[in-house]
Amino acid sequence: MGEKESSALFIEIEQMVEWLAQFGRSQSGGVTRLLYTDSWQEAQYALKKKMEQLGLITNFDDVGNLFGRLKGTQEDAATILTGSHIDTVRDGGKYDGAYGIIAAVIAVQLLQEQYGTPKKNIEVVSLCEEEGSRFPMTYWGSGNITGVKSFDDIRDIKDSEEIQFEEAMNKAGFGQGNYLRPNRKDLECFLELHIEQGIVLEKEEMAIGLVSHIVGQRRYNVTVFGESNHAGTTPMMWRKDAMYAAAELIQALIGRGKETTPDLVVTVGQISIKPNIANVIPREVTFSVDIRHSEECVLDQFCDEVFRELELIANKHQTKLTIHNWMNEKPVKMSEKLNNLSEKILEEEQIPYKWMTSGAGHDSQIFGSFCPTSLLFVPSQNGISHSPLEFTKTKDLEIGIKVLMKVLYELAY
Amino acid sequence: MGEKESSALFIEIEQMVEWLAQFGRSQSGGVTRLLYTDSWQEAQYALKKKMEQLGLITNFDDVGNLFGRLKGTQEDAATILTGSHIDTVRDGGKYDGAYGIIAAVIAVQLLQEQYGTPKKNIEVVSLCEEEGSRFPMTYWGSGNITGVKSFDDIRDIKDSEEIQFEEAMNKAGFGQGNYLRPNRKDLECFLELHIEQGIVLEKEEMAIGLVSHIVGQRRYNVTVFGESNHAGTTPMMWRKDAMYAAAELIQALIGRGKETTPDLVVTVGQISIKPNIANVIPREVTFSVDIRHSEECVLDQFCDEVFRELELIANKHQTKLTIHNWMNEKPVKMSEKLNNLSEKILEEEQIPYKWMTSGAGHDSQIFGSFCPTSLLFVPSQNGISHSPLEFTKTKDLEIGIKVLMKVLYELAY
Repeated sequence: MGEKESSALFIEIEQMVEWLAQFGRSQSGGVTRLLYTDSWQEAQYALKKKMEQLGLITNFDDVGNLFGRLKGTQEDAATILTGSHIDTVRDGGKYDGAYGIIAAVIAVQLLQEQYGTPKKNIEVVSLCEEEGSRFPMTYWGSGNITGVKSFDDIRDIKDSEEIQFEEAMNKAGFGQGNYLRPNRKDLECFLELHIEQGIVLEKEEMAIGLVSHIVGQRRYNVTVFGESNHAGTTPMMWRKDAMYAAAELIQALIGRGKETTPDLVVTVGQISIKPNIANVIPREVTFSVDIRHSEECVLDQFCDEVFRELELIANKHQTKLTIHNWMNEKPVKMSEKLNNLSEKILEEEQIPYKWMTSGAGHDSQIFGSFCPTSLLFVPSQNGISHSPLEFTKTKDLEIGIKVLMKVLYELAY
Repeated sequence: MGEKESSALFIEIEQMVEWLAQFGRSQSGGVTRLLYTDSWQEAQYALKKKMEQLGLITNFDDVGNLFGRLKGTQEDAATILTGSHIDTVRDGGKYDGAYGIIAAVIAVQLLQEQYGTPKKNIEVVSLCEEEGSRFPMTYWGSGNITGVKSFDDIRDIKDSEEIQFEEAMNKAGFGQGNYLRPNRKDLECFLELHIEQGIVLEKEEMAIGLVSHIVGQRRYNVTVFGESNHAGTTPMMWRKDAMYAAAELIQALIGRGKETTPDLVVTVGQISIKPNIANVIPREVTFSVDIRHSEECVLDQFCDEVFRELELIANKHQTKLTIHNWMNEKPVKMSEKLNNLSEKILEEEQIPYKWMTSGAGHDSQIFGSFCPTSLLFVPSQNGISHSPLEFTKTKDLEIGIKVLMKVLYELAY
C-alpha cells in the first residue's frame, strides 16, 4: 500500500469509529449500547446497510447476531468468521467490541477491492452481546453460535427494570424462528481483533499482542464471622474482630499471589462490613476475590494452598470462614496454527509484537473451545477501558486492520 | 438489713426496672426513648411523680433535666448529686442510664426510711440526654449542668426528620426561661451507678467496678488513594491497589495496638471501597479508627508512632494517605477521695470489686472536670449493651444500690 492509500485508510478508520459511536453516545462522550435497546438496534441496522453497500450478503440470526458474507468461489467452501461484539457497558468506550467489527468490515472491503472474490467464504460478524451489562448473561452472541447457550438459559432472566430477556428480544424483532437458527456448523475458524484493555503493549511499545491463552477466572466471596462488641469496653485479648482477621486474610491472598508467578493476578475489589459503626467491633466482613491465570493447574495449586492458609489465619483470630465460589471459567488456548500464521506476517512486516495471555474474557474464549480461534490485541492508551476515556491511536488501529487483512488473505484466497 | 428486707428490695428493683422500661418499650422488648419524644416525656413526668411520692422536692431545668431533692438540715448545705440519663439509643436496653436513676431513687428512699433527714442535700437527677441518638449532640443534660454546653450549641442541629433541636425542646415544654437555669454552682460531688457494658466484671466474677479514669477517645478516618484498573489485564507489579495497602494498614494499626499495652484498644469498625466492583482494582479505601486509653501521653505516643508507620506502608504500596481526626476526647480522672471512700465500704462489706477504666463515655466524664465525681459499674451479662438483650442480674443491681446508699450516708449524714 502506498502512502496516499494509507492516509485515506487512516481517515476512513477515524470516521467509522465516530460513525458507530454515535449509536448510543452518552452525555460524557462515551457509549451506552445495551442489548436489544433502541441504540443497539440502530447500530445493528446501520451496520447491515453498510455491509450491503460493500456487496456483502447480510443475515441476522434469531438472537440478533448480524452476519455479512463475502461468498467464496469454492463449492461448499468453509467460512472464516471475523468480528466482535456490538454491545457496550454503561458509559463505556468507542473501541471495546466495536473495533473488532470495524476492522473486519474495512479489511473485507480492502481485500475485495485488491484481490476480488476469495476462494473461501469470509463473514463479518457483529455479535449481539458479550458484556452482560443489561441482563445477568454474558457471551449471548458467541454462546448461541457455538451452541453452548440456548433459549433455555434466559427463561427467568430480567434486567434492572424487571423486563424479561425474551420480551426485550422480541420487542427488538428477534426470537426463535424469526431468522436463521444461530448454531453454526460451517465455521473453519474465528478471528477477533480487540483493544488490550491493559497497559502492557503501551508500556512495552508493542503494536500487536498475540494471545496464546485467555486466562481462567475464579471468583469467590470470602466471609469472616467474628463477634460484635463495644469498641471501648472490650479488651483486645477478648475480641473476635472480623475486620482484623479480614485484613490479614486479604494481605495473605494478594501477597501469596504476588509471590507465586508474575502471570497470576489476585484482586479484592469489593468489601462490606457488619454492623459498620465506628465504635463497634465488626462481627462480619465479606470480600470478593478474583483470581486469574492461563493454566488450570496453577489456579488449582494456588487456591488449594492459599485457602489452607486462610483457614489457619481465621482460626488464629478465633473467627470462622466461608469461601463461596461463584465463577469458575477455565483457561482457553488460542489456535497455535493461526497464531503462527500471524507471527509470520508480523515478522515479515517488521511489526513489534508480544506473545501474551488475555486477562480479560472475550468472545474468542467461547469460540476457542469450538473452532480454531485467534485473538489479536492493539494497545489501549493508559490501559483505560469501560470508560469514555478509552482510546487507541488510529495508527495502532490501522496496524491491526492490516494484519487482519493479511491473515484473511492467507486463509481465504 | 435482714433477709426479709433484702427480698422486698429485690422485688422493688425488678418492678422499678420494668416500670421505667414501659415508657418507650419497643416491639423486640427493648426501649427506644429518644430526647423530647412522647415516651421520653412520659418517663420524666412519671419519675417526677414517683419522686414527689417519696417526699422529694422536684424541679425541671430549662433543658429538661429532672431533679428530686431531699433537703438537708444544714443551712446553705452543699448538694450531693446522683443519677444518670433517661434517654436511650434506638431499641436499646432497660439498664443503660435507667439503672443509675432507679438506684438513686431507691437509695434515697431507703436512707430516708432508715436515717431520716440528712445534713446535706441529696439530689436525684434524671439527666435529659447522653446518647446522641436523636440529634447529633451528646451529654446535653450533664453538659448544661456543668456549663460546657449551652443553647448556642444547638442552633443548627436537626434530627433525621429535619426537626430542629430547639423546636423539639419547646414542643416537650422546655426551653430558655421555662424552668430553672440549668448551670449549677452548688454541687459538692456527682455519683453515678452504671452497667459496665463490657465483659470484664462478669469474666472476673467481680460485683463492682471502681472506675479510676474514663478513657480518652480519638477517632479518625483514614483514606488510601491508589489507582483503579482492570483486575484481569493489570500485572501485579504495576498495580497501586488501595485495598491491598488498606489491609496492611489495618493490620499494623490493630497489631501495634495489641502490642502496646493491655489497656489500649484500637477498632476499625467502618470501611468503604471505590468503585466496589469485583473485577476492578480499588482506587480508594476509607476506614474508621477508634483509639482509646486512660492516659493522654499513651494516646499521643501510640498515634505518633503508628501514623509514621502507616505513611511508610502507604509509600511502599505507591499509594497516598490522608488521616482525618474527627473526635478527640481527653481522658478524665474520677475523684480519688470518693473512690477511696467506696473502696473502704467495699472492703468492709467484703464485696468483690475491681479497679478499672471506663472504655465508654458517660455523664461522669462531663461532671469529672467540674466537681469530684465517682462512677461505679455493675456487671453486664455477656457484655451486651445498646440492645434489647442488655441484662444485669437483680442481685448485682442490688449490690450496687447498697454501695451507693452507704456512700451517700457517709457523705450526707
